[in-house]
Amino acid sequence: MQARLSLITLGVADLPAARAFYQRLGFSELPESQESVAFLRLQNGLLLSLYGRAALAEDAGVPDDGQGFPRFSLAHNVGSPAEVDAVLAEAVAAGARLVKAGQSVFWGGYSGYFADPDGFLWEVAFNPFMDLTGAAA
Amino acid sequence: MQARLSLITLGVADLPAARAFYQRLGFSELPESQESVAFLRLQNGLLLSLYGRAALAEDAGVPDDGQGFPRFSLAHNVGSPAEVDAVLAEAVAAGARLVKAGQSVFWGGYSGYFADPDGFLWEVAFNPFMDLTGAAA
Repeated sequence: MQARLSLITLGVADLPAARAFYQRLGFSELPESQESVAFLRLQNGLLLSLYGRAALAEDAGVPDDGQGFPRFSLAHNVGSPAEVDAVLAEAVAAGARLVKAGQSVFWGGYSGYFADPDGFLWEVAFNPFMDLTGAAA
Repeated sequence: MQARLSLITLGVADLPAARAFYQRLGFSELPESQESVAFLRLQNGLLLSLYGRAALAEDAGVPDDGQGFPRFSLAHNVGSPAEVDAVLAEAVAAGARLVKAGQSVFWGGYSGYFADPDGFLWEVAFNPFMDLTGAAA
């Protein structure tokens, strides 16, 4: 696994409110943003995304009980479904817990999740619509 | 406030275990790492840092009750104490809650915290020892 972050997703209670707050702070949205998800460009070449908290928990397949669920995820994007599976396997070999096996997802990509020893969620994803694999300059 | 992230800090229960996990995953530590904090280099020019969960809560001045405390923080580094105060004021003007006013901190820098509408913590910091203000390439 490369030490690279593609996006950070914050699971928010009120998406319009969170969106408005970050806009007031001066963060600008990408045209790929949708009503259900805001993609904010960070100068580092990565994205800060705002997504409903319940939707994020559902996407990872974890209970939104406020205890174990960290309310955010770190994403590592790769170039193909096979690479998603390979990185998930690598993480498990390193001691991660597989939270969601790699699978085709509703937005048209392929992704899975692993949890680090503290339960922090990493999504490993292939997104055929947005190239986030070479986010670094 | 510039839309820039300097580091992401995960508040972990067992620092040696978390450190070992990320090393097995292939993340490398910076020489600035210490026994109490690990700085892992990300390709984007930003850092992933691992810090004790209780220490992180204490640093932000929030209770580590597992409920409100998100167990991680996003950091935005700037070039001077005056800039820390200015960004904190800007965030408050945008609707953030001031969690900790800008102040000199034990590690020799100057920092403060604000919370976004969901309680996610942003640390705004001046670090005279590590230049993280131009983390982007």
